[in-house]
Amino acid sequence: MNLVVLLPKDLVAPDRARLVGRRLAHVREVYRAGVGKELSVGLLGGAMGRGTVLSLDAEALEMALVLDQEPPPKLPLTLVIAVPRPKVLNRVVAAATSLGAARIILLNAWKVEKAYWASPRMGPEYLREQMLLGLEQAKDTVLPELRLARLFRPFVEDELPALIGAGRALVAHPGAGGESGLRGEPLTLAIGPEGGWIEAELLSLYRAGLRPLDLGPRILRTETALATLVGRLF
Amino acid sequence: MNLVVLLPKDLVAPDRARLVGRRLAHVREVYRAGVGKELSVGLLGGAMGRGTVLSLDAEALEMALVLDQEPPPKLPLTLVIAVPRPKVLNRVVAAATSLGAARIILLNAWKVEKAYWASPRMGPEYLREQMLLGLEQAKDTVLPELRLARLFRPFVEDELPALIGAGRALVAHPGAGGESGLRGEPLTLAIGPEGGWIEAELLSLYRAGLRPLDLGPRILRTETALATLVGRLF
Repeated sequence: MNLVVLLPKDLVAPDRARLVGRRLAHVREVYRAGVGKELSVGLLGGAMGRGTVLSLDAEALEMALVLDQEPPPKLPLTLVIAVPRPKVLNRVVAAATSLGAARIILLNAWKVEKAYWASPRMGPEYLREQMLLGLEQAKDTVLPELRLARLFRPFVEDELPALIGAGRALVAHPGAGGESGLRGEPLTLAIGPEGGWIEAELLSLYRAGLRPLDLGPRILRTETALATLVGRLF
Repeated sequence: MNLVVLLPKDLVAPDRARLVGRRLAHVREVYRAGVGKELSVGLLGGAMGRGTVLSLDAEALEMALVLDQEPPPKLPLTLVIAVPRPKVLNRVVAAATSLGAARIILLNAWKVEKAYWASPRMGPEYLREQMLLGLEQAKDTVLPELRLARLFRPFVEDELPALIGAGRALVAHPGAGGESGLRGEPLTLAIGPEGGWIEAELLSLYRAGLRPLDLGPRILRTETALATLVGRLF
C-alpha cells in the first residue's frame, strides 16, 4: 500500500478521516506510524495529498487531510480480457489498474470455462477490491471503468466498434506482425483465454476493427505481457 | 507450464526422456495427455522441439524427442536487484527469467533486511527452481546467469563497471529524466530495495556509470515495472 485510498464513508469531516480494518492494520504494522506521522492519502475518485495522524489505537486512526494533488492521468487504454482462471483474474485486474488502464472489459469466449463466471471472484465487490489494491499500489485514486460482457457476439459486433472509436485496436496473435507508430494513441487491446480465441471469434474481432499483433516468441503471464505492451505503446 | 524443460537426468537415451514428479503430474492433470500426444519440450540449456508420449502411468511418462528448434534469444539485459522480501523475490526472479534477462544479480543494500539473506528462498536450489518456472512459462531453455553479491561496495565499485562494459546502465529514481534512444542496446538496470537506495549507495552507482531514470508517477510492483521497462527498451 503506497497510498491510503479513502472511501466517502471514511470521512468524518471534509478534512478529517477515520481508518479501521485492513488499512488501519497496515498503517500500524507495516508503516509503524505514530501520532504526527504523515501518510500519502487520496480520496477515491478525487484528489491526493497527505494525512497527518492525530490519534491511533487498535480500534481506529484519525488523521487531518491536505488534498492538493491531482491523481496521475489514466492511459487511453481499453483492455478486453477473456475471463481467466479466478486466481489469474485477481492479478490481472490489480495489475491493469496499477498500470493505469482506463477501462477493463471481462469478456466471455468459447474457451472460457463456465465455472469462471460463477466464481465469487467475479462478484462486483471482489473485483472492486482488486482494483482498489491496484490503486493503492500505483498511487492513484480513480477506478477503471469495469464491465462484464457475458455474450461474446453482441458485445464484439454491436458495442466494441464504438468503444474503439478513432483509436487503434489490437488482438494478441502469434505469427502476426509487430505494431508500429502508435505510441500514446488511444488503444483497445484484446487478450484471449488460455486456449486462445477460436477462428470465429478472431473473425468477429477483426470485423470489429482489431488488428493482429505478435507479442514475440516468449509466452508471458497475462499481467506480464500487459505490462510489456504498456511499456512499448505508451 | 508452456514448455516441459528436460534436465540431463531425465534423458534415458539421446532421443528419449522420462518424466516423474511435478512435471508428470502437470502433464497428466492439466494437459490430460495420453499416449501419442505431442508436448512442447526443451533440453535445459539446449534445443527445443516436440516430445511424443510413448507410455504414461501414475509413476512415470516416457516420450520420444525431436529437438530441432533454437530457444529464443536472451535480451542483453543485466538486472541488479536489491534483495526483496522472500515472497517478492520468487515472483521477480521468475518474471525476469520469463522476460529473457541474460543476467540477474541479487545485491545487498542498506535497507535490505538481514533476515532476507537467511531465507531458504535465497538458497541456490530454490532460486534455480524459480528460474526453471520462468523458462517453462516463456518457452525458453537457457537459465539466466545468477549471482549473489552480499557486499555492496566491492561489487558496485570493482565489478559492476566491467559488467556494464560499453552498454548503457540505469537506476530507477523518481524525479530523474526519461531515457531515450536506447532500444535494443545492452542495458544494466538497478532496482532498489523497498525503502530505496541511501544517498551513499546512489553515489556509488552513479560512479559505476549508472544514470538515473524516472519511471513515472505510478509506483508499480517490481516485476510489473520490470516488464514495462523491457517493453519500452527492447
